[in-house]
Amino acid sequence: MKNIKRQHIAVFTSGGDSPGMNAALYGIAKKAEQSGIRLSGIRKGYEGLVDGDLVLLDAHKLQKMVHRGGTFLKTARSKRFLTLEGRQRALRNLQKNDIDALIAIGGDGTFKGLLVFSEICDIPFIGIPGTIDNDLAGTDFTLGFDSAVNTAIENIDKIRDTAESHNRVFIVEVMGRDSGYIAIHSALGTGADAILIPESGQDFVQLLKRAANYNREDAFIVIVSEGDELGAEIAASKIKELKPDVDLRITKLGHVQRGGNPSAADRMLGIRLGVASVKSILSEKKNVMVGVLNNELSLTPFEQVVKQHQVNNELYELVNIFSK
Amino acid sequence: MKNIKRQHIAVFTSGGDSPGMNAALYGIAKKAEQSGIRLSGIRKGYEGLVDGDLVLLDAHKLQKMVHRGGTFLKTARSKRFLTLEGRQRALRNLQKNDIDALIAIGGDGTFKGLLVFSEICDIPFIGIPGTIDNDLAGTDFTLGFDSAVNTAIENIDKIRDTAESHNRVFIVEVMGRDSGYIAIHSALGTGADAILIPESGQDFVQLLKRAANYNREDAFIVIVSEGDELGAEIAASKIKELKPDVDLRITKLGHVQRGGNPSAADRMLGIRLGVASVKSILSEKKNVMVGVLNNELSLTPFEQVVKQHQVNNELYELVNIFSK
Amino acid sequence: MKNIKRQHIAVFTSGGDSPGMNAALYGIAKKAEQSGIRLSGIRKGYEGLVDGDLVLLDAHKLQKMVHRGGTFLKTARSKRFLTLEGRQRALRNLQKNDIDALIAIGGDGTFKGLLVFSEICDIPFIGIPGTIDNDLAGTDFTLGFDSAVNTAIENIDKIRDTAESHNRVFIVEVMGRDSGYIAIHSALGTGADAILIPESGQDFVQLLKRAANYNREDAFIVIVSEGDELGAEIAASKIKELKPDVDLRITKLGHVQRGGNPSAADRMLGIRLGVASVKSILSEKKNVMVGVLNNELSLTPFEQVVKQHQVNNELYELVNIFSK
Amino acid sequence: MKNIKRQHIAVFTSGGDSPGMNAALYGIAKKAEQSGIRLSGIRKGYEGLVDGDLVLLDAHKLQKMVHRGGTFLKTARSKRFLTLEGRQRALRNLQKNDIDALIAIGGDGTFKGLLVFSEICDIPFIGIPGTIDNDLAGTDFTLGFDSAVNTAIENIDKIRDTAESHNRVFIVEVMGRDSGYIAIHSALGTGADAILIPESGQDFVQLLKRAANYNREDAFIVIVSEGDELGAEIAASKIKELKPDVDLRITKLGHVQRGGNPSAADRMLGIRLGVASVKSILSEKKNVMVGVLNNELSLTPFEQVVKQHQVNNELYELVNIFSK
Repeated sequence: MKNIKRQHIAVFTSGGDSPGMNAALYGIAKKAEQSGIRLSGIRKGYEGLVDGDLVLLDAHKLQKMVHRGGTFLKTARSKRFLTLEGRQRALRNLQKNDIDALIAIGGDGTFKGLLVFSEICDIPFIGIPGTIDNDLAGTDFTLGFDSAVNTAIENIDKIRDTAESHNRVFIVEVMGRDSGYIAIHSALGTGADAILIPESGQDFVQLLKRAANYNREDAFIVIVSEGDELGAEIAASKIKELKPDVDLRITKLGHVQRGGNPSAADRMLGIRLGVASVKSILSEKKNVMVGVLNNELSLTPFEQVVKQHQVNNELYELVNIFSK
Repeated sequence: MKNIKRQHIAVFTSGGDSPGMNAALYGIAKKAEQSGIRLSGIRKGYEGLVDGDLVLLDAHKLQKMVHRGGTFLKTARSKRFLTLEGRQRALRNLQKNDIDALIAIGGDGTFKGLLVFSEICDIPFIGIPGTIDNDLAGTDFTLGFDSAVNTAIENIDKIRDTAESHNRVFIVEVMGRDSGYIAIHSALGTGADAILIPESGQDFVQLLKRAANYNREDAFIVIVSEGDELGAEIAASKIKELKPDVDLRITKLGHVQRGGNPSAADRMLGIRLGVASVKSILSEKKNVMVGVLNNELSLTPFEQVVKQHQVNNELYELVNIFSK
Repeated sequence: MKNIKRQHIAVFTSGGDSPGMNAALYGIAKKAEQSGIRLSGIRKGYEGLVDGDLVLLDAHKLQKMVHRGGTFLKTARSKRFLTLEGRQRALRNLQKNDIDALIAIGGDGTFKGLLVFSEICDIPFIGIPGTIDNDLAGTDFTLGFDSAVNTAIENIDKIRDTAESHNRVFIVEVMGRDSGYIAIHSALGTGADAILIPESGQDFVQLLKRAANYNREDAFIVIVSEGDELGAEIAASKIKELKPDVDLRITKLGHVQRGGNPSAADRMLGIRLGVASVKSILSEKKNVMVGVLNNELSLTPFEQVVKQHQVNNELYELVNIFSK
Repeated sequence: MKNIKRQHIAVFTSGGDSPGMNAALYGIAKKAEQSGIRLSGIRKGYEGLVDGDLVLLDAHKLQKMVHRGGTFLKTARSKRFLTLEGRQRALRNLQKNDIDALIAIGGDGTFKGLLVFSEICDIPFIGIPGTIDNDLAGTDFTLGFDSAVNTAIENIDKIRDTAESHNRVFIVEVMGRDSGYIAIHSALGTGADAILIPESGQDFVQLLKRAANYNREDAFIVIVSEGDELGAEIAASKIKELKPDVDLRITKLGHVQRGGNPSAADRMLGIRLGVASVKSILSEKKNVMVGVLNNELSLTPFEQVVKQHQVNNELYELVNIFSK
C-alpha cells in the first residue's frame, strides 16, 4: 500500500456552497502541481461523478479564483448517487480516467456518501469540511463560516444604523439550521441585545419581555438562528402580544450569507486544507477529513465527523452574559 | 433680499432615515458656522418639534458623523403634529428658542407637513430630499438612493456566487414601495436576468416563462421591487406552477438597504444640499426644496415636490433591453 | 440616415483601466445582440488593433463581468499606433474582419488617436469616457470616477480610525494627476480638515499653519491630490518646519483606487453609455463621445473632448468652506 | 489574597491601535457590570495613567462601539511613564481613585511597562494582546491581525484588477515590521505570485528573476513585508536592473491596515479576551496576558510574552509552495 505513487487526483465540491471552496481548490492544485500529480475537477458534486463530468484543473487558472465566492466546480444534490447503480457508474468514471485518489469538499453528508462509496471503490478518499454552519466535529472552523459571519455582521451593522435612527426593535434571522454558531458570533460581534438559538436553555419569556418592555432611547436588536424553534415571526408576534404598540421589524439575511468573496481567514483555511489534503493522499491516508483542530492540522476518520449541535461552554457562558 | 438677518436655524430629519442625512447635517452646520448663525437640531422629527427636544449642533462634532449611516438626530412619525394643537406647540417651541428658519430633511410627506405648518408659522422652511426611493420630482437623485443601490448590488453580487454554484433561480426583492428605481439600478448593475417593477407594462407571463424554462448551465436572477403587484412569493409560485421541479430561492434584502455608511455620492450630495439649504435661507427663499436637477443646484416649491411613480424613458428602454 | 446597415462592431478599452469598463462592454454587447450586430473585442487597446488581436464577444458571457473591476479586454499603451505604418496595419485588421464601426473606451488621448486614425479609416468611431479622473469635457462624470472616490473614502474612513486614536496629523494622497476631483469629493466625504488641490488658489501657508498648530484633542486629516505642486512629502516637511514635534503620517492610496468592483453608479453609467454608443452607430453618428451631460445622454465631437483642469464654481466654493 | 473583592477596575489601550480594541472594552465592561464592579477607562495609554485622565465606562455605551475601529480610549506613547517619577504619579492616580486592578490592551512593550510598574504597584495587572502584527508568544492570534489582513486582501484584490488589465508587475508593501504574518496571509489569500518576508531564507535572486522574466499574458504580484530587508523600492530597482522595460508599480498600503471596522473574528476575540481578563482578576491572577492558545483561553506570564519573529513550520512550507 505504501508504495503506490498517486498520479491523478480528482476533486469535487458537494452540498451547499461556501466561501473559500475556490481557495481550497487552489491549494490542492498548487500542491498537486508541485508533486507532479494531475488534477481533475468533477463538476456539480456527486452528480458530475455519476455523469463523468470532468475538467482538467491547473494551478494558474485557479490562482485567479482564490478571492472569489461560490465554487468554480459548481455543486448539486444527487439522487442517483444514492443508488448502487449510480455509484457503480461513478466508479467506472473514476476507473476510465485512471483517477487514483478523490478529494471532496463538503459537509457530513458528503463524507457519509464517501463511506458508502468506499464499499465498492478502494482508492483513498479525503474530505475537506466546507459548510458555513461550523457544526462539524474534527475542526475548529469549517470553510465558509468566517465569511458568513462577516457578511452577517456587516449587514447587521447596517441594520443598527436604521434601528437606532428610529429607536426600533429589530429581529434579524441569520443562517444555521442546526446550530447557533453564526447567530452567537454575529450577535456578540454587533453588540446585539439578545440571542435566540436552538441550543440554549434560555428563558425565552424573560428575553421577550426585555424586548417588549424596551423603552430606552435606543434600538433593541435580537439575533435569531434560523433553526431556532421560535423563529423570527413567532418571536415577533409574542413580543407584540406583550406590547402591542412596539415598533418592530424583521429582516432575514438569507442566502447573502452563502456568497461573497471569502474572508481572509477562509482563504487561508482553504489553502491550508487544500495543501493538507494532497499531502494526506501522498502519505497514504484514506477516509479521513483534514481539519484544523486546536489551531493545528488534524485528521478525523469520516465515521467521527458528525454534526455538533451544542456550542461549547465558553460560548454558552458568553450568551448568558451578553443576552441579558 | 429683505434684510432680515437669520440668527438661529433649526434642522430635523423626518420620515424613513436614509444614508447621507448626517452628511447633510454637517454641510448645514459648516455653512451656518461660517455665516455666524446658531444651529439647533430637533430630535425625532416632528415629534421633537412638538416636544421642544432641541440640541445645539456644532460643525466639529458633525464632522465625525459624515461617514455614518442613519441620522444623528433620529427620526420618527408624529401623530400629534397632524393636529392643530400639536402644530401650535411646535410653533411655541420655535418661538421660545428664537428660531427664525427651519430645515427639514425628508420626503414628500415631510414637505407637505411644512406646508400645513406654514399656515401658522411664517419663518422660512427649506427642504432637503432624503429618501432611498429616489421618487421625488425636483431632484435627479434623493439622498440615500445611491447608498441603497450600492448595498443592494453588493448583496446581489453575493447571491450570484451561490446562485451560480447551484445553477439556481433566485428572486431577490429590493426596496421601493412605489417606484422601481432601486430595482432597475440594482438589476442592471448586477447583470440580473429579469426585472419586475410596478411601473412597467411588462409581459409577466413571458418573463415568468423565461425563468421557468431556464435550463442553461447557469443561474437565473430576478429582481423584484417590493412595490410590484406580483411580489416575490407570487412570482415564485407562478414559476413553480410552470415548472414544478425548479430549484428556486427567495431573498428579501429588507432594511439593510436603509443603513450602512453612505456612499461617496450621497456624502457629496448631502454636503451640497446642506450648504445650499443654508444659502437659500440667507437669500430669503422659503417653502422650497433644494435639489440637484440636471446636475445643477435647483429650488422646487414644496407644492411641486410630488412623488414620481414613472421611471423615465431611457430607463424604461433599458428595462426592455436587459429584461429579455 | 445613410441606410448603411452596420453588421460588425468592434470595441476596445484604452489608456488606464477604470471600474465600469466591463459594464460598458455588457451594455454594448446586449444592445448589439438585440440589434442583430456581431460584436468583437480588441484586446489590449490600440496594441491589439495593430496586432489584430480580436475575440468574439457575447452578451451572456459579459453579463457575468458587469460587477468586476478592470477590463476584460485588457488595455495597453501603444507606440506602434503612433506611426502611420501601425495605423495602416490597424486599418487592414479592421477590413480583414469586415468591421464597420468601432467603439473605444478611454480618455482624451484615446479619442485623439481616433481622430488621427479617421484620416485613413472612415468607418464610424464612437468614444466612451473611461477614466477615474473625471476631467473630461462633455460628460458630468467619467466612467470609474465614482468607484475611485468610493474606494478612497472607504480607505480614508479607516485612516480616520487610527488618526483619531492617536490624535495624529495624516496627509493622504489620492489620485488625480491634473485635476482635484477625487481629492475634493473624498475630502468632503470624509470630513477631512484640509484639501490641497492643483486648481485652487488656496492660501497654503495658512493651511499648513492650521495643520501645524493643531492641538485639539483630535485628528487632523489633509487630502492631497497627487497632481498638487506641493505633494504629500513637501507638505509634510513644511508642517514639520512649523512644528517639529508634530505627530504626522503620510499614506498614498495609489493604485487601489483604480481597481475593485465598480460602484452602482459606474455600473449604471457603463451600461447606459454602452447602449448609447451602439445606438449612436445605428443612427450614423461618428467621431463623437457619448456622455451624460446635465443628467441626459449627450454626444460631443472628439475635437471638443478636452481635459477640464478647473473644477466648477460650486466645488470651488465648497473647498473654501470646508478647508478652513 | 483569595478574599479580596475587587471593586474598581481600570483599563487602558496602549501602543499602536488595532481593530477590535473597542470590542475588548465592551467585553470587559459587560462582565464587570455583571460582576458588580465599577469600570474606569484611562485615556491615551500610559500618558493618561500619569495624568489621571479617567472616565467612567458603562457597558451600554460601549455596546455601540463594538463594531468601530480604533480605540475609544485613544492611545499614545509616554516618555514620562518611563521615569520613576512618572510611575509614582501613575500609582497615586490609581490609589486616589481606589482602583484595585488594571487591564492593559497592547503589545509586548505595554506588558514590559506593567512589569516595571509592578515593582511599586501590587494590584493585579492583566494584559490583552492588541497589535495587528500577530507576533506575540502566548496567543494564536493578536487582536487586530485578522482585520488588518482582511483590509490588505481587499485592497490587493483591487490592485489585481488593474494589474491584470495591464499585465503589470506590482509590488505591494504590507505592514509587519518584525514579522511576515500579514504578508504571508495576504499573499496566499490573494493568489500572489511571490512573497518577500524577513523571516524566510528565500532565494531572492531567483524570486526577482521570476518577476523580471515574467512575460505571461498576466499580472505578477509580489507582496513585501515592510520589515523585509529588501523593501519595495530595492526589490523594484533590482527587477528593473534585470529587465529594464518591465511595467512595474509599487503600492504601500500603509495605515489603512490599522483602521476600519474590526472583522468578525476580531470582534469575537476582543469580547472573549475582555471577558476573560475580568474573570482572571476575579480569580486573583496577576501579571499575565490572556490569550487564545490552540483555540482555548490561556494565561501567559508577562515575562514570557516576547515577540515571535519566526513564522511556524506550516506557514514556512506554504511560502515555499506558493512563492515559486
